[in-house]
Amino acid sequence: MTRRLLLLSNSTLHNGKYLEWAKSEILDFLNRKNVKKVLFVPYASFTHDEYTNEVKKALEPWGFQVEGIHSSPDPVQAVAQAESIFIGGGNTFLLLKTLYSNGLIAPIQKQVLENGLPYIGSSAGTNVSTVSINTTNDMPIVYPPSFMALNLVPFNINPHYLDPDHNSKHMGETREKRIKEYHEIEDSPPVLGLREGSLLAVDGNQATLKGHYSARLFVRGKEPVEYDVGADLSFLL
Amino acid sequence: MTRRLLLLSNSTLHNGKYLEWAKSEILDFLNRKNVKKVLFVPYASFTHDEYTNEVKKALEPWGFQVEGIHSSPDPVQAVAQAESIFIGGGNTFLLLKTLYSNGLIAPIQKQVLENGLPYIGSSAGTNVSTVSINTTNDMPIVYPPSFMALNLVPFNINPHYLDPDHNSKHMGETREKRIKEYHEIEDSPPVLGLREGSLLAVDGNQATLKGHYSARLFVRGKEPVEYDVGADLSFLL
Repeated sequence: MTRRLLLLSNSTLHNGKYLEWAKSEILDFLNRKNVKKVLFVPYASFTHDEYTNEVKKALEPWGFQVEGIHSSPDPVQAVAQAESIFIGGGNTFLLLKTLYSNGLIAPIQKQVLENGLPYIGSSAGTNVSTVSINTTNDMPIVYPPSFMALNLVPFNINPHYLDPDHNSKHMGETREKRIKEYHEIEDSPPVLGLREGSLLAVDGNQATLKGHYSARLFVRGKEPVEYDVGADLSFLL
Repeated sequence: MTRRLLLLSNSTLHNGKYLEWAKSEILDFLNRKNVKKVLFVPYASFTHDEYTNEVKKALEPWGFQVEGIHSSPDPVQAVAQAESIFIGGGNTFLLLKTLYSNGLIAPIQKQVLENGLPYIGSSAGTNVSTVSINTTNDMPIVYPPSFMALNLVPFNINPHYLDPDHNSKHMGETREKRIKEYHEIEDSPPVLGLREGSLLAVDGNQATLKGHYSARLFVRGKEPVEYDVGADLSFLL
């Protein structure tokens, strides 16, 4: 398995610049394969040009050329010719629906899983890299043809994972309760709760937790477990 | 139009008992039609018996007999024979999927819109009474055959509406931002943000905001507007 993935919980930390918190990981991830060009997928947003410009502003000073997939007349071809792919955050439903309608699910799977195309995901872009979008936090503003996603890893991620706020008087469900509800469903895969400022690096059959914070792993029928930064999570693969 | 709806943002307030905050509205709503029996729909939860017992414990001391629709061998028949219907909260996706798989969408619409069956919804049960579940806050733990819902009113509701927390360092989208993203979509209906402890009472073509807090109305292409308790929102119908 040649896959190489960098799965970020989120793009921007409070008071931080876009992608800044993950800069050294991104540089290392792309430079190790001598990547110069990044194919950016802005489908999680409605404003493709604007969003792509924001990514250009962040990545070009770091030495990478950024192209928005929406600028290409043939997005499938763009994926086939890419040196690396970055799927940004926004609305997960909109993103997955657009990946389906542009026929990009199988082409991205093939490129990443068979040809080792380096894949960076952030937030919604991390959600769609997993088995399904069943554990997104987003509002279902559009109806995708399925919740099944790219399946580049055999588990799900909950990005922007949030601990319960014991001072809150709001009665909406906590994140943990929502994930436990998901695990009522038979055969539901494990869910990794990735806090903001954390990422999962996958290299072949090796998975490592990186970034600033521990992550919380939920497995159907078991108590959740915390894993520290640096933890080897390869058993999830 | 004979419809009579009581659409609650939520069932339980912080430190409160189940449905207690809405007791006088519920009593008035059901007693005005001399209702003695409530058909309860526990489909938003995985534990139908347990959930129905919780509702019994709340409503029976107020003088109502509660039957869980899941106890009936024929749920369509149960709806046809009901004196009133109450759809409780939980997971909106699970609820809507189960309404579809049990063939209950058209029967409930007919009973409420043509025969004036009193309908109480809470949280997910309020979401499914509207045009679609596009503005639920829930996690998409199962895939329903559509996001289109009962369409008992021609707009959407966001229950548990939450104002932005300006002290938060969390970078997930605010509720307002999520609803504005929904309104990027052409022909998307208005969305009423109902804060916890608020409800919308619909009587024919009359809609009134009741409960403890103002509500925030989002209309595509316009600035959001606050409406005070007691406001006449019939223009939404």
